[in-house]
Amino acid sequence: MHTILVIGAGQSSSSLITYLLNKSTTENLHVIVADVSLELASQKINNHPNGKAITLDIFNEEARKKEIKNATIVISMLPAKLHMMVAKDCIDFGKNLITPSYVSDEMKELNEKVVAKGLVFLNEIGLDPGIDHMSAMQVIDNIREKGGKMLLFESFTGGLVAPESDTNLWNYKFTWNPRNVVLAGQGGAAKFLQEGTYKYIPYQKLFRRTEILHINKYGKFEGYANRDSLKYKSVYGLDDILTLYRGTIRRVGFSRAWNVFVQLGMTDDTYTIEDSEHMSYRDFTNSFLAYNPNDSVELKLRHYLKIDQDDEIWGKLLELDLFNPHKKVSLKNATPAQILEKILRDKWTLEKEDKDMIVMQHLFGYELNGKKEQVKSSMVCIGDDQTYTAMAKTVGLPVGIAAIQILNGKIKTPGVLLPISKEVYEPILSELKENGIVFTEEKMPYLGYNPDKSYT
Amino acid sequence: MHTILVIGAGQSSSSLITYLLNKSTTENLHVIVADVSLELASQKINNHPNGKAITLDIFNEEARKKEIKNATIVISMLPAKLHMMVAKDCIDFGKNLITPSYVSDEMKELNEKVVAKGLVFLNEIGLDPGIDHMSAMQVIDNIREKGGKMLLFESFTGGLVAPESDTNLWNYKFTWNPRNVVLAGQGGAAKFLQEGTYKYIPYQKLFRRTEILHINKYGKFEGYANRDSLKYKSVYGLDDILTLYRGTIRRVGFSRAWNVFVQLGMTDDTYTIEDSEHMSYRDFTNSFLAYNPNDSVELKLRHYLKIDQDDEIWGKLLELDLFNPHKKVSLKNATPAQILEKILRDKWTLEKEDKDMIVMQHLFGYELNGKKEQVKSSMVCIGDDQTYTAMAKTVGLPVGIAAIQILNGKIKTPGVLLPISKEVYEPILSELKENGIVFTEEKMPYLGYNPDKSYT
Repeated sequence: MHTILVIGAGQSSSSLITYLLNKSTTENLHVIVADVSLELASQKINNHPNGKAITLDIFNEEARKKEIKNATIVISMLPAKLHMMVAKDCIDFGKNLITPSYVSDEMKELNEKVVAKGLVFLNEIGLDPGIDHMSAMQVIDNIREKGGKMLLFESFTGGLVAPESDTNLWNYKFTWNPRNVVLAGQGGAAKFLQEGTYKYIPYQKLFRRTEILHINKYGKFEGYANRDSLKYKSVYGLDDILTLYRGTIRRVGFSRAWNVFVQLGMTDDTYTIEDSEHMSYRDFTNSFLAYNPNDSVELKLRHYLKIDQDDEIWGKLLELDLFNPHKKVSLKNATPAQILEKILRDKWTLEKEDKDMIVMQHLFGYELNGKKEQVKSSMVCIGDDQTYTAMAKTVGLPVGIAAIQILNGKIKTPGVLLPISKEVYEPILSELKENGIVFTEEKMPYLGYNPDKSYT
Repeated sequence: MHTILVIGAGQSSSSLITYLLNKSTTENLHVIVADVSLELASQKINNHPNGKAITLDIFNEEARKKEIKNATIVISMLPAKLHMMVAKDCIDFGKNLITPSYVSDEMKELNEKVVAKGLVFLNEIGLDPGIDHMSAMQVIDNIREKGGKMLLFESFTGGLVAPESDTNLWNYKFTWNPRNVVLAGQGGAAKFLQEGTYKYIPYQKLFRRTEILHINKYGKFEGYANRDSLKYKSVYGLDDILTLYRGTIRRVGFSRAWNVFVQLGMTDDTYTIEDSEHMSYRDFTNSFLAYNPNDSVELKLRHYLKIDQDDEIWGKLLELDLFNPHKKVSLKNATPAQILEKILRDKWTLEKEDKDMIVMQHLFGYELNGKKEQVKSSMVCIGDDQTYTAMAKTVGLPVGIAAIQILNGKIKTPGVLLPISKEVYEPILSELKENGIVFTEEKMPYLGYNPDKSYT
């Protein structure tokens, strides 16, 4: 009997826990779900005979150590900054560990100890990071094994609303942390490589430099650049690559309209607005526009940002009630970003029956036998409902599959790992496929990064 | 005999030291100028019989304390963050202190001790902060004494090149720290009040929200908002004011062209550019533009920032050699801001015969006897040469005048002070006038902050 300890029973744990419970009889598993909220943990276990919900305050050292000591393997679904306490206990008690979070420098430093104890600490094994690593490395390794040389790698991921629930002009609803959506792209320029040239986009231009993607059956999407494209160069072994770009997917037109908030300064989280509590949405909008008693807020904004009278952006802004003089902000000492988040939540919160959607697309360009080729690999996952969301499935399933692979000794190379080796990604991708998370590949002529090439 | 210790013999100390030496016989002064560079200190003293140049390492506690102990009054012309060491010694030895820098929180905390010892620690007594405080408070106090109620206060200052030395399309040369010019406006939104409404401008729009100023004999200027307008509300006792705005002055058209750098991301100082050393100026510009092998850097930039073919911005960019493929950046691991600074230094460094210019303008709106009125107060100061620059004069003279006023017991109210009380500003402004630093006042009908009012 293997005891799996899952710490954290939040939204992203639902598919993971159900997966483990479904496997519990054949795999001989005892699944313990620990959370500060016993209610939350119990909901997830749902009286399954092989499961047990417990209360655990992660900061209670004694309780934490006791549970970790009793487990065969530990899955930390905690916020990223809390993994380290668990990781250190796992070393002390000789337990394997899985987290879906970006591996921190602190975590990396444990590598020597982890290897010495023969343990597997598998990180970045959710959606992004996670499925993106695995699906990309499978294609890259395949190209290399045939003797190909990688020239281009572009990778895009987005959490969106499913087409059947897509009911607003932005084609967007919050399917994950709204605050992260409001702050997206802040904190530094985006940096990437295009045909051997390093390119930089500052925040103020980020949402005006989108790329267009096509996904079969789902149509057109757009992507804006992530800040961190270059760090994948060494991780994926792409040191000589000419084009390297990672981006976030939205429906076409989202970024152009979002740019209105950026230009106005509504996404700023560094200062608080005077008397935000008693402001109307209209006052809030007006606070970013010049004073003029004779002109409307509407015309001032159109003129300031040069929005034509028939531009579709306008409908998007109206839909959010941005000019409404009656709706109150009702938040004390709020930053612009906090107020904007509230305005967006009014309209972008999922309805009870709404489903979410995860979209991922990679582009691989390479030279093989003197010929340049390109492969497009796309994945779309639609949520079942608001428990088994596409986000919960794509984050939780790879974690669950990895846990069983580790327990069964299929994933065994010790160390603080990312899922980029064949030993890790092959069994996981294959089982994800069985669970409906499928990448469709499409070969095409090599275009490189050259928007005009098709016309030369 | 009074011993005045001036610590720091940099460019902004030249007019100060000359002023003190000129007064030394009538005022019975011994002027000690201390700097890490004896050469620099000696240049400033220029063999004057009442002066003495000494080497002083400010971090050498013993040497520092010795000099401060021997002085009657201490003037710290050090970088702002170094004042505190001097301030603490001044308390220990019971010496008055003058600095032209913004008063820090740490400095403010000394107030009780300073008062207890009956000392005067006068801060913010240079140009801006300094002359701006004094010239504004004189008019504000005057309006109040007549029973007027302040409605509007706008204040602008700029360090520019003198008209006779204004030889480039930007109408700008570096007359002060170039790095500060490149980074100007970063680090938070500008915040101000217009007709009772709080207004916020993010960095990405700062240089597109300029105000136009007119100064007799000098023509049109523009001002962009400073970040810190609101903190003057309580300092100047303007708690009920409707319009409060502080800005930086440039010649008309500068900000609109500067915005090109902001939009491209060239003013970013938070990351380094890959292989900056071997880049040409053209490569640098191109690194902020999309990859396209068929289009020129010029056309990509024009299209990206929507610059018309006959826009005067273009000449400004060409003048800076921004598209030059032969000029090399030659800076290792440089940030965009460092590279831009280098490009600008090539063209904006003062020639040997060039003179600088300081421009300041305040607008005061008020209600007096049921009538609304407005006063415009302007000051222009042109440098004599590159030693006695307008900047050195306007920073150094008020410091020097204040020192003698304190020595003579004219400025005597103890505490950590700003120059906002009549006791301080009256004698100083009056002597500044004798030295050619003159404000010209002009009454006009009340316009308030309302660009369209003249047509209604």
